[in-house]
Amino acid sequence: MAISKLKVAVAGLGRMGKRHAVHLLARTPRAELVGAFTPDESELAWGRANLEPFGVKLFTDYDEMLKIEGLQAVCIATVTTVHAEEAIKAIEKDLHVLCEKPLSTSVEISRSVVEAARKRSHLKVMCGFSRRFDASYRDAREKADSGMIGRPSIIRSQTCDKHDPGGFFVEYAKFSGGCFVDMSVHDIDLALWFFGEDSIVKSVAASGIVAVAPGLKQHGDYDNAVGIVEFYGGKVAYFFCSRMMAHGQEDTTEIIGTEGKLAVNANPQANFVNTYTSTGINREVPPHYYGRFEHAFVQEANEWTTACLDGTKLPMKLSGALRAVEIGSYLQEALRTGRKLYFDETERRVEHASL
Amino acid sequence: MAISKLKVAVAGLGRMGKRHAVHLLARTPRAELVGAFTPDESELAWGRANLEPFGVKLFTDYDEMLKIEGLQAVCIATVTTVHAEEAIKAIEKDLHVLCEKPLSTSVEISRSVVEAARKRSHLKVMCGFSRRFDASYRDAREKADSGMIGRPSIIRSQTCDKHDPGGFFVEYAKFSGGCFVDMSVHDIDLALWFFGEDSIVKSVAASGIVAVAPGLKQHGDYDNAVGIVEFYGGKVAYFFCSRMMAHGQEDTTEIIGTEGKLAVNANPQANFVNTYTSTGINREVPPHYYGRFEHAFVQEANEWTTACLDGTKLPMKLSGALRAVEIGSYLQEALRTGRKLYFDETERRVEHASL
Amino acid sequence: MAISKLKVAVAGLGRMGKRHAVHLLARTPRAELVGAFTPDESELAWGRANLEPFGVKLFTDYDEMLKIEGLQAVCIATVTTVHAEEAIKAIEKDLHVLCEKPLSTSVEISRSVVEAARKRSHLKVMCGFSRRFDASYRDAREKADSGMIGRPSIIRSQTCDKHDPGGFFVEYAKFSGGCFVDMSVHDIDLALWFFGEDSIVKSVAASGIVAVAPGLKQHGDYDNAVGIVEFYGGKVAYFFCSRMMAHGQEDTTEIIGTEGKLAVNANPQANFVNTYTSTGINREVPPHYYGRFEHAFVQEANEWTTACLDGTKLPMKLSGALRAVEIGSYLQEALRTGRKLYFDETERRVEHASL
Amino acid sequence: MAISKLKVAVAGLGRMGKRHAVHLLARTPRAELVGAFTPDESELAWGRANLEPFGVKLFTDYDEMLKIEGLQAVCIATVTTVHAEEAIKAIEKDLHVLCEKPLSTSVEISRSVVEAARKRSHLKVMCGFSRRFDASYRDAREKADSGMIGRPSIIRSQTCDKHDPGGFFVEYAKFSGGCFVDMSVHDIDLALWFFGEDSIVKSVAASGIVAVAPGLKQHGDYDNAVGIVEFYGGKVAYFFCSRMMAHGQEDTTEIIGTEGKLAVNANPQANFVNTYTSTGINREVPPHYYGRFEHAFVQEANEWTTACLDGTKLPMKLSGALRAVEIGSYLQEALRTGRKLYFDETERRVEHASL
Repeated sequence: MAISKLKVAVAGLGRMGKRHAVHLLARTPRAELVGAFTPDESELAWGRANLEPFGVKLFTDYDEMLKIEGLQAVCIATVTTVHAEEAIKAIEKDLHVLCEKPLSTSVEISRSVVEAARKRSHLKVMCGFSRRFDASYRDAREKADSGMIGRPSIIRSQTCDKHDPGGFFVEYAKFSGGCFVDMSVHDIDLALWFFGEDSIVKSVAASGIVAVAPGLKQHGDYDNAVGIVEFYGGKVAYFFCSRMMAHGQEDTTEIIGTEGKLAVNANPQANFVNTYTSTGINREVPPHYYGRFEHAFVQEANEWTTACLDGTKLPMKLSGALRAVEIGSYLQEALRTGRKLYFDETERRVEHASL
Repeated sequence: MAISKLKVAVAGLGRMGKRHAVHLLARTPRAELVGAFTPDESELAWGRANLEPFGVKLFTDYDEMLKIEGLQAVCIATVTTVHAEEAIKAIEKDLHVLCEKPLSTSVEISRSVVEAARKRSHLKVMCGFSRRFDASYRDAREKADSGMIGRPSIIRSQTCDKHDPGGFFVEYAKFSGGCFVDMSVHDIDLALWFFGEDSIVKSVAASGIVAVAPGLKQHGDYDNAVGIVEFYGGKVAYFFCSRMMAHGQEDTTEIIGTEGKLAVNANPQANFVNTYTSTGINREVPPHYYGRFEHAFVQEANEWTTACLDGTKLPMKLSGALRAVEIGSYLQEALRTGRKLYFDETERRVEHASL
Repeated sequence: MAISKLKVAVAGLGRMGKRHAVHLLARTPRAELVGAFTPDESELAWGRANLEPFGVKLFTDYDEMLKIEGLQAVCIATVTTVHAEEAIKAIEKDLHVLCEKPLSTSVEISRSVVEAARKRSHLKVMCGFSRRFDASYRDAREKADSGMIGRPSIIRSQTCDKHDPGGFFVEYAKFSGGCFVDMSVHDIDLALWFFGEDSIVKSVAASGIVAVAPGLKQHGDYDNAVGIVEFYGGKVAYFFCSRMMAHGQEDTTEIIGTEGKLAVNANPQANFVNTYTSTGINREVPPHYYGRFEHAFVQEANEWTTACLDGTKLPMKLSGALRAVEIGSYLQEALRTGRKLYFDETERRVEHASL
Repeated sequence: MAISKLKVAVAGLGRMGKRHAVHLLARTPRAELVGAFTPDESELAWGRANLEPFGVKLFTDYDEMLKIEGLQAVCIATVTTVHAEEAIKAIEKDLHVLCEKPLSTSVEISRSVVEAARKRSHLKVMCGFSRRFDASYRDAREKADSGMIGRPSIIRSQTCDKHDPGGFFVEYAKFSGGCFVDMSVHDIDLALWFFGEDSIVKSVAASGIVAVAPGLKQHGDYDNAVGIVEFYGGKVAYFFCSRMMAHGQEDTTEIIGTEGKLAVNANPQANFVNTYTSTGINREVPPHYYGRFEHAFVQEANEWTTACLDGTKLPMKLSGALRAVEIGSYLQEALRTGRKLYFDETERRVEHASL
């Protein structure tokens, strides 16, 4: 008896869309990529060269693509501003959805997707946070679960991108939701993963600077920012995000427990090569997050496919993606206003610190 | 126009055979796995569960498998003793061949495969040395080619396996050809890659011990051995192979040039996690070579497939596999007899050192 | 012509006092330790065994010790509460002073020492911040000065002590001034060193927890705390201090500039040994700050001695010690009250963030 | 009661002589440096500036120095060719001796010193092998002694110097005894320390090249050499020595046991600084052995002083220094002749391998 494959289409063939398409086409054995949508001519050209020969049909209209006969699932990797709308359309067509993060930079809009999905609980709707699929983060999680470090109490996590002097990030800042929502959302998600998804925020403070990309100021964004999120129950997470790294991508997380510490990627490296020359011993660092998380993205495509086909549980809830954006938006407010935010034990905003 | 895929069959579904089958089935988009052969009942059972559902036909007779209509290529991963015979049969059927290393533990038999392939030069016949497909070794090679370390002059390379108290290696030693032929053949191949494939051996010396697996003695094998291979032209390679590592697999290579040094895997690690507890800071190590080289094996399957389909050049010559076994057999002789071997500038054996 | 040595006495023979005495006696060739004071009987016994045989006179009265004929300098390592009084007495006797940090946990009292010293500017009065004498921090500073990392913009620095289940820190918390004043004062000093001593604080926020030493609560202290200090001019420092490390002392500093980053002690290690066993690869970490900074303390004793004898410049100003305590006290207030503090461009307290 | 100090004089004020003089003067509290001898005018000038002001008397005649009233000990750091003669003279004057390695490059002459010392067993005569005093090697030894790695079976050890294009080593090669005697003697000593001082050599093989310093050929020396020393009882040591490192000094040792491995200095580093720039993450390496072993030399001076004064045991026997030179000379012969050397179980030379 032949196995059945998941018929899936991809929306968006930009930087991440191309990667998702290739992963579903060639690195997800139980998936069959049947369609791809993009309104962009150069992306279409890429699709004609790289997808059509494998039998993938191309579309310039998202709604048309959803009409593919037998289509079961959609992977959404278009610009963030249309994620929610496309996700809801797919859900309403009874299709499984894998949506690039974030659902939206707006908490309200993100919530609308979560609610649409809640109505069709048989669908597998996931907003991918790649680190949840990364072998190292999973190993850290298993070690924490085993009790090796006692009770996780402090989390330090950073998302630091290689400086791109080309100005890409300035343009991008128009829609990104700000550095904490765009970058630290991964770190926030990790904090919730290790502290518990039901952790309640007690206070939030943040500071940022514009050091290398003055154009960010017009969009109210920063190229470096630090934030502290305190949770009820004696747990503190602190975050650093930066777009100023000279050496490459450096995403590092420390989970500090009462009896030990776990560090993920404390020593970033592109591969296993060290070069010994007159300047000393040197190693290279991945230039971007895909260099660090390629295998996590492939794993994500495979696990989501399996969940769609077999009805198995996804490793993270859709509501978690909403929650991370929510806390990210607190950090954005704290950063933008310079104020410290306080919350009561139901996470309602209050005026003063509860000591 | 749909792309054509390479119709390929796998011989052997043991430890590596299973992996090759999965790579060709699920991680090599331009390959189509159409058949698999194994005489072993438990391996067949695995094939029925994992390959048949994807349309792969199973065989208990190698010759029958070669008759699959439209078959273009065979991947051979049976026991070493039948590699050569199966490879030659496939070549004679005009099929491309990817053969697990070594072609044979016998230099003469290895040579017969090289000669069979030479007569059908349109075929892509490759004996896979996984490290040639590893991203780190390739990066090291590019850096060496760029002149970064001057002229490669000394190579230190080791293949060290985690100690297996279960006795697997003792059984295996009956047919393995000895530790240098079985393990160091990778390191020898690397030495040739960095020093030049045409390097001429000048002298060979070796010493070994049996420290943890006394059963090896009955097969004339060792669980730890060190060897020096001196080449004409001022180049020396030295090797260590061991089956005694407590911590896991540790394959390390240093290429030492007149102006710098490259080290590959000087700090083995299973992933990016460090654990900080009362004993200090700890990291884990891959337990076996597949943990270190998984992606290299997948890369190998893909590049071989591309070469078969498009006629492109393979990254290594079949004769290189013969050459590595040949030098491995010198080391075995030096180890077994305790004698140092000498060669003249045409690599003919001589009695005394040429100074 | 024989060289003249600096006649110096030590006040206090506790944990650090013993070390200072030994450094001045045996590892500072231009110093001559002539006296030591302690009111503590067990410390006196140690002095009789370890100092008297080398000709060092012991005192149970600090004032008596200051009357030693020809005395030129005093090293103060008594409990923090008497640092300032003893330092001022020595200054008034026209003696050079090396005082353990901090001058006082009170900004006002610290300032009184700075003022006493200012009146006798020929005296070398130093409050030792050991990291300023550490070879690695100095190398980092030289690299930063060379322009290698552009303009220092973000500093992350932590002082993390090995967890002492014996309760020492709980007792100590009565007088320590709180975790930021006691521990992070080093990190604050480093921030000022790299950002410029004249940097003006713009805002301060902090959060802390009591995770392993509940006794700290009665003293209003925390065993883990995180703080952000924002400076005018686009500079942010963030700090972590902890007394909960399972593995040992971990003091790490990152100086992140517009064109690169410097990390000091990103990979703590007790020595150059790695152990490879069935759990993986392990290295040990120094159990306390002296294990990390021993040589810095010796360097400090030597440089201070040279400055006293030759009138050369000290590597740090006394006012810097006051400044670090001042910023530490901001962090303590932010931590204790849960409030974020704001300052105008003259560092006067204001009610709201200046954006 | 004042302590008594060891009255000691230094012979030779060259590179190491200066260091020994400073260690004994300023970093060895129980030693009193009373004299220094050198026939060299520029060294004398250094002594006048750096030793005389501290009361050290200078001599241009070694014998005159030995007549210093009350002299108890001599530290010999002259050129290797006079070590033995000076040591014997001092022994005959009933003085303790700390002699720089080697006693002599000749086994016979080395033996004469050992014999002279044997006649006066109350004297502390030591030939310093600095690694025996290094905190990391001692930690490794303690861990090995604790049984952590089972039975030490394979040792890999290397002494690799930074390439000095100035030609110093070519001149030095006239008297150095060859690269194995000059450099690997440390590694040989370590092998004996971990395998047991009474280990019997079974066979020796070696290969070398001249890659960057062609002038070495006229002295029969090599700038890179690899050697294997097999001992009876299932123990193999292999060595690499090089004067070609671009990055700095790299002395690394692995002790591989039946149940684990210890590595010393697998990741050389000058200090705790890492630099992150566009080329990646870089750390510097000590440029020479003193950068790596400074504290070991100071430790050596202190322990020898203590042994002289208190009659305590030295951490290594004088005969060990002879033994290391002896095995070094086997390696030199194997290197020079290209032949493999064989020994019977009493370490007498035989013609053929004993299997």
